[in-house]
Amino acid sequence: MYRVDLNCDLGESFGAYRIGMDEQILPLISSANIACGFHAADPLVMEHTTVLAAANGIGMGAHPGFPDLQGFGRREMKLSPAEVKALIVYQIGALSAFVKAAGGSLQHVKAHGALYNMAGKDKALAEAICEGISAVDENLIVLGQAGSRVEEAAKEKGLPFAREVFADRAYEEDGSLVARSKSGAMIEDEEEAVNRVIRMIKEGKVRTVTGKEISIQADSVCVHGDGEKALRFVEKIRKALLAEGIAIKPLREMTT
Amino acid sequence: MYRVDLNCDLGESFGAYRIGMDEQILPLISSANIACGFHAADPLVMEHTTVLAAANGIGMGAHPGFPDLQGFGRREMKLSPAEVKALIVYQIGALSAFVKAAGGSLQHVKAHGALYNMAGKDKALAEAICEGISAVDENLIVLGQAGSRVEEAAKEKGLPFAREVFADRAYEEDGSLVARSKSGAMIEDEEEAVNRVIRMIKEGKVRTVTGKEISIQADSVCVHGDGEKALRFVEKIRKALLAEGIAIKPLREMTT
Amino acid sequence: MYRVDLNCDLGESFGAYRIGMDEQILPLISSANIACGFHAADPLVMEHTTVLAAANGIGMGAHPGFPDLQGFGRREMKLSPAEVKALIVYQIGALSAFVKAAGGSLQHVKAHGALYNMAGKDKALAEAICEGISAVDENLIVLGQAGSRVEEAAKEKGLPFAREVFADRAYEEDGSLVARSKSGAMIEDEEEAVNRVIRMIKEGKVRTVTGKEISIQADSVCVHGDGEKALRFVEKIRKALLAEGIAIKPLREMTT
Amino acid sequence: MYRVDLNCDLGESFGAYRIGMDEQILPLISSANIACGFHAADPLVMEHTTVLAAANGIGMGAHPGFPDLQGFGRREMKLSPAEVKALIVYQIGALSAFVKAAGGSLQHVKAHGALYNMAGKDKALAEAICEGISAVDENLIVLGQAGSRVEEAAKEKGLPFAREVFADRAYEEDGSLVARSKSGAMIEDEEEAVNRVIRMIKEGKVRTVTGKEISIQADSVCVHGDGEKALRFVEKIRKALLAEGIAIKPLREMTT
Repeated sequence: MYRVDLNCDLGESFGAYRIGMDEQILPLISSANIACGFHAADPLVMEHTTVLAAANGIGMGAHPGFPDLQGFGRREMKLSPAEVKALIVYQIGALSAFVKAAGGSLQHVKAHGALYNMAGKDKALAEAICEGISAVDENLIVLGQAGSRVEEAAKEKGLPFAREVFADRAYEEDGSLVARSKSGAMIEDEEEAVNRVIRMIKEGKVRTVTGKEISIQADSVCVHGDGEKALRFVEKIRKALLAEGIAIKPLREMTT
Repeated sequence: MYRVDLNCDLGESFGAYRIGMDEQILPLISSANIACGFHAADPLVMEHTTVLAAANGIGMGAHPGFPDLQGFGRREMKLSPAEVKALIVYQIGALSAFVKAAGGSLQHVKAHGALYNMAGKDKALAEAICEGISAVDENLIVLGQAGSRVEEAAKEKGLPFAREVFADRAYEEDGSLVARSKSGAMIEDEEEAVNRVIRMIKEGKVRTVTGKEISIQADSVCVHGDGEKALRFVEKIRKALLAEGIAIKPLREMTT
Repeated sequence: MYRVDLNCDLGESFGAYRIGMDEQILPLISSANIACGFHAADPLVMEHTTVLAAANGIGMGAHPGFPDLQGFGRREMKLSPAEVKALIVYQIGALSAFVKAAGGSLQHVKAHGALYNMAGKDKALAEAICEGISAVDENLIVLGQAGSRVEEAAKEKGLPFAREVFADRAYEEDGSLVARSKSGAMIEDEEEAVNRVIRMIKEGKVRTVTGKEISIQADSVCVHGDGEKALRFVEKIRKALLAEGIAIKPLREMTT
Repeated sequence: MYRVDLNCDLGESFGAYRIGMDEQILPLISSANIACGFHAADPLVMEHTTVLAAANGIGMGAHPGFPDLQGFGRREMKLSPAEVKALIVYQIGALSAFVKAAGGSLQHVKAHGALYNMAGKDKALAEAICEGISAVDENLIVLGQAGSRVEEAAKEKGLPFAREVFADRAYEEDGSLVARSKSGAMIEDEEEAVNRVIRMIKEGKVRTVTGKEISIQADSVCVHGDGEKALRFVEKIRKALLAEGIAIKPLREMTT
């Protein structure tokens, strides 16, 4: 039987500021990447988000980011590997306490924003992230892009790794994402996006921006809940996957 | 056999800013209240502090405070009980991850600064703190002042409670500390301070600022490591306690 | 000729977080209280807001608040008068630079949130605020509630003071606002709210929550732009004021 | 007559955290680069520093940095030029208010830490900084390294520019500093350091790390006040300059 995880960033509000349609996206996904208070979220938001996710039976993951609320963790910061390892431990620890208080246990860790992008290409950063994860709990699943430095580092550390794919992004021949600055980076047509994902799951293949077929493994599909359009797309992809007989399951059930 | 814990605030540096003589105080104490990144400390400092404390065999405690680095957590903030509970969970979680990574396990929680003082008198705050602690781990020892609202709340929640005394502070007849603004609030004479502590431990009594004898239980003595004078006083009290046959042991060994 | 100012909080977004309908409210008001980066806003938001306000010919005011982004400046903090004076100077200075860069000059200062409420009742705080304002520019208009400690402090300092009234709030016999926790605190009926404001301006009177008539002076009416309903009310009150022959003018033109 | 400015970073304490020996360095320097609350300092520290600097007749400059207190502004952050321009305006504005309150007027702006280093090589960043300065006050002197992108941008903007040299750093043939990671980057011998500075001022020449003579103009020498050794070196260089008949004057008097 085919199966896949749908992961979405969650719990990104802060104080009086609201972002995301968490209540609406929750019934549609199987795993949540929950902000940990550095690039987004505060303790109350984290408590609310974990209670909500637990009630929905969602796999809960930490979504650690740079200490840059103003930049939402999307601005590159040049931190030492020791600083990165420590901020990973800190954020996982903080979120884990809420997950435990909500009656669950932490499933995975996915780096956020600029940290995700930088670590994908920078082995020292990727290793720092994996050392931080490993220091807290070596059973935590690392969620990242297949072929990235994060995958390498996770495997070297002996951490379980789940491969993330993107429905709305074009791929280069080496399996990396086409940079957003290039034309053709986004898959605008929703039908096409859905069909690409189904093919990744069932055939393990995707057509690159250059027209070539490459192999790709999809453990989890990254979706978004930050607007009406995004929500409707998640409903569409969810329906299509189920119609194809692809079960939607949290990562923890995927990797066992 | 008599025994007591010596607790001290630790790990209060932040980034390029140094506070405290952590390396020197560590061999002299038995428990450390470790800052968690809100009123002081950052992830790197927390990692360094927990590694150091673990190496010294010190009982490690979380020292959660208000989100006010500029005020070092010493400025009163009017937060809702829900906000206080959530910041307690967050900070305990973050520190626990470092404690675990350092090969230890968290021993206790002591509120910091204005939060400690406010919760001592405000039952709703005290309950919020204890609910936060309980949500993470109901075996954590709450360290606070005997007779405070925190003691009441801890007992109602079924949390183990350790009673903290102060060597350098005068007491009112109800067992509370004489406000710093009043004359006679501080015990300036070091001999006298040491003798008062010994008497609290051995006889369970202390003479109040009004001259009356009251009962007092001392599970832990609060000491300071923020200067040469403070360090020498800790050496003196430590030597005097041992000379009196009073063992100095971490809280965990006290309450079992 | 009758005239009044309509003031509204503006520029409260932060990084990726949006709050307020600034573009829509701007054509309807005559003065803006612009967040200065402590309880809300960041440098980019402040630049954008001042450019927008200048283009609309709006009187620009600083809206300094507590250093508490998470609490949106609405949580009480116990700061010393020296700390309050310094944070007022800082925030006025920061905003002034943007106002100047946008080709304008700062018109007024209105304390935000908990700082506004606390200073209204606490003379030392009110004096600290006025000392901060005076240190930067003694021609800045202080916007506050008539009869408050802020009015007293402003007058003692020789600062121009503008009296703010609230359309949607009930008044006590001493001219203070009925606490939100009490029933009858809010004027729910929009017709009634508009009529009360017109009477305050034309007759200098308002009926209190107890039914008594008291004198009240209205230099500026506080309005809100944080939702569709709020916007429509501003349109309604604006139309009603103009129909009554009451001109809507920035504070600077009021007090000269 | 020869003359030069001695500039030093000042006012870098934060809350309970102390850095620097401001009181001791002040009588020895002629200009201060004062932290503005982003990478260091808080409003109270800024008030204290400007009062102190004004009392000592020191030329006061803004020292804007990245919004990164934890990294002390020394960690590279990838901000857009618009973000950099806005944070420059903000920080200059905030400091200017304290300078004005202290009875002075702002003399110069020197970027701090990673922002200084990055802007020295990145024209877009350098332009963003100069646009921010120019937007607030086009008479502010930009203090930076000769031959840097900041000098280019300042000149294109029509801003006065003062050329900074370093006593304790070796130079490459193109006038840039030898990277700290390379051997020979630091001039360890204090005699040599002093003699190099005197030669830069009197002859406009310095010997590079490669042994070649290059031209160099010295309007201001960067010195440090963060320790006893640094203080003694400033005393030494000050004495040597005066003995050579080189007057020590604030930048403002240099460039007029």
